[in-house]
Amino acid sequence: MATPIGIALLGVGTVGAAVARRLLAGGEPLARRVGRPLLLRHVLVRDPARRRSFQIPSSILRTDVGVILNDDETSIVVELIGGVDDARRLTFDAVRAGKDVVTANKALLAVHGREIFAAARSAGRCVTFEGAVAGGIPLIEAIRRGLAANRIDAVYGILNGTCNYILTRMIDNGASYAHALGEAQRLGYAEADPTTDVSGLDAAHKLAILASLAMGRCCDLDRIAVKGISDIDLIDLTAAAELGLVCKLLAIARRHGGDISLAVEPRFIPRSHPLAAVSGPFNAVSVYGDLIGHCLFYGPGAGGDATASAVLADILDVASGNAAKTFAAEGVLWDQTPAATYAPAGEDASPHYIRVGLVDRPGGIAQIATILGNAGISIASIIQHESPYQQASDPVPVVVTTHPARQRDVRAAVTRFGELKEVLGAPVCIPVLEKLGPGGGK
Amino acid sequence: MATPIGIALLGVGTVGAAVARRLLAGGEPLARRVGRPLLLRHVLVRDPARRRSFQIPSSILRTDVGVILNDDETSIVVELIGGVDDARRLTFDAVRAGKDVVTANKALLAVHGREIFAAARSAGRCVTFEGAVAGGIPLIEAIRRGLAANRIDAVYGILNGTCNYILTRMIDNGASYAHALGEAQRLGYAEADPTTDVSGLDAAHKLAILASLAMGRCCDLDRIAVKGISDIDLIDLTAAAELGLVCKLLAIARRHGGDISLAVEPRFIPRSHPLAAVSGPFNAVSVYGDLIGHCLFYGPGAGGDATASAVLADILDVASGNAAKTFAAEGVLWDQTPAATYAPAGEDASPHYIRVGLVDRPGGIAQIATILGNAGISIASIIQHESPYQQASDPVPVVVTTHPARQRDVRAAVTRFGELKEVLGAPVCIPVLEKLGPGGGK
Repeated sequence: MATPIGIALLGVGTVGAAVARRLLAGGEPLARRVGRPLLLRHVLVRDPARRRSFQIPSSILRTDVGVILNDDETSIVVELIGGVDDARRLTFDAVRAGKDVVTANKALLAVHGREIFAAARSAGRCVTFEGAVAGGIPLIEAIRRGLAANRIDAVYGILNGTCNYILTRMIDNGASYAHALGEAQRLGYAEADPTTDVSGLDAAHKLAILASLAMGRCCDLDRIAVKGISDIDLIDLTAAAELGLVCKLLAIARRHGGDISLAVEPRFIPRSHPLAAVSGPFNAVSVYGDLIGHCLFYGPGAGGDATASAVLADILDVASGNAAKTFAAEGVLWDQTPAATYAPAGEDASPHYIRVGLVDRPGGIAQIATILGNAGISIASIIQHESPYQQASDPVPVVVTTHPARQRDVRAAVTRFGELKEVLGAPVCIPVLEKLGPGGGK
Repeated sequence: MATPIGIALLGVGTVGAAVARRLLAGGEPLARRVGRPLLLRHVLVRDPARRRSFQIPSSILRTDVGVILNDDETSIVVELIGGVDDARRLTFDAVRAGKDVVTANKALLAVHGREIFAAARSAGRCVTFEGAVAGGIPLIEAIRRGLAANRIDAVYGILNGTCNYILTRMIDNGASYAHALGEAQRLGYAEADPTTDVSGLDAAHKLAILASLAMGRCCDLDRIAVKGISDIDLIDLTAAAELGLVCKLLAIARRHGGDISLAVEPRFIPRSHPLAAVSGPFNAVSVYGDLIGHCLFYGPGAGGDATASAVLADILDVASGNAAKTFAAEGVLWDQTPAATYAPAGEDASPHYIRVGLVDRPGGIAQIATILGNAGISIASIIQHESPYQQASDPVPVVVTTHPARQRDVRAAVTRFGELKEVLGAPVCIPVLEKLGPGGGK
């Protein structure tokens, strides 16, 4: 066998430990894939004395990145330290030192992808990032290679396992948001400070990467309309279940002619849609291409071993020389593509779920129906859920579903509900994802 | 831009026409991916005068394959003629003439894959086959590259859209098998002679390819236990629906230590499993890897444009030079791997669905329960469906579900039911796929 390919890991958290374990213990099947052994030569850590669940041999622990950058026998640097500032600096240093970089850092690429790719390109190196989106699911590769002949018109899916776990527990167990969040924290699915996940920001980072790649346009994180799940009320999940709808936090990128719309928001999905079956901490992404129609990729969205699966696939891709060819030739990364232009918000038409609390007084429903009718919005169903224990002073929850209508028209109508004297509290309005029909043949 | 890459298509059916259309009309985005234009130089047909839905310029229509093989400016031959014998000969001729071959021919690779890969290897060429399994879904690539760091322990899924369409119509619309088949034929989802599809043979071809690749062992088509859907009775689909189960024709490959089990057979799946949501002509495949856990790939399993998406991805992969590197180095194709050894049939444990017709006489259910109990098979539920219109002479259908038990033990017990005087007609016994738990992190 030829000379080994030297690898350095920067950071050894959950994912780093899983990558190191496989490289140190199970190298032979990996070496066979590329015809050369893979040799883990350096692991950069802050504190070499710290006890770790997986023990790294002290002979390869480093605290000085200079040793790594100056080692000519190390050609691949795997950035797994997370965060943005240090990761950015180290990535720049690595490509300038002639290393190829493998990263699973979504925040880094969502914010600084363009300059990182450009720096790698001018240094004649490549950067790969399968682990940055949807954990172990080989989604980046599918879009770059397997679906390369398609014009991709839409990409949407469940990109945050924490939110999906919380929503699944609320739906399946009738748990409140606070209770489900606490459970997710106990199980390690949510951080002590869950803000990045439940606010939708983590899904937005991933969407910026996914959309930029799929649409062939550099999509700006700041142009994603982001709404999280912390306002979701159990009452709406229960009412929607009766209508055959399931709530998911979806990240959505759509092509509208030359423009693109980007959103992260809670949506109801019909139970028959394949995304509705994605429960717990799993991720799944639907891709619509002009040739393939609808396809979907499902799997674990995070976790040490699952993400290591993606990081190791990238290491093999770099080691085989394929990644360099793809990086150099394909012309779809966002240092090479024009900036996206954006469709005006709210132009998409979809059915909607609306809940309003009405005082129990004649005419309330008529007022609601009139406002919708005047806005040209057609009602699909109305359900009034009066409880037998209803007090005269309590608002009666009325759930309205609409036929497909422009989102901004529906939002404007719902704003008008809030002005009616018959309406108590803020109305809830959640778009419903339409099931797109089968695209394929037999 | 550099010299164009010359391409020849052999055969221009539904898939060939879709590939030709994209190469002739939409070449620029494809060329950008590889840094060189792709030029369709030859299309081999039987009858150049035949009218086609997509008109190929007569200047590139050929009837003599020699012209193609002798053209030094053609480096990629795309085999889409189907069948085995002609396709085999042309593929051999092409690699010996120094061409790389892209094929979507599952029967060819399931039967002759080993010798075709070996011939290509000794000629220094490569063969790619993304379109041969699961139509447009980039599944072959995912297993070869995206999941390359995993030991794959199981691959199973819905690989035949015709069967899935028929079963979906029976379940959703209460149609009989014959009615659903007729409808599938009218819609073009089933051939006039549907034997290859409904017998399970088509799924077996695909499973032989998929299992050989995923398990790293050459799997023999003849070692797949194949059972089709033509015996499926609507009564069982209806009874199972009450139990939350959906019937799918599954192709299943599992690793048992060093051995492999291979089957194509109808199975019941819990409604909560992601495969249960795969309806109509769609395909989906679950893959279990030791790092990633469970992931799933869903999309159109056939159709001209969808399969063209896979064929074009292969063309780009060959044109970029990546396919040659992968083919040369990875050591996972079945000319390079040992022959599989097989686990004894029926060793897998799973829950079972059993239906027996009992004469309405005391003691029938007790006999059934005794046989199961003596075999150590634990009963999960018993439902006796007596109709109000029941005649004393009619058998009463009794549906039993079991807790997980070895398949051959269950089959042996069911054979004993058939010997009871209380049992009328042949009992039905269908294994239930267990939902494997979530593998990933958040």
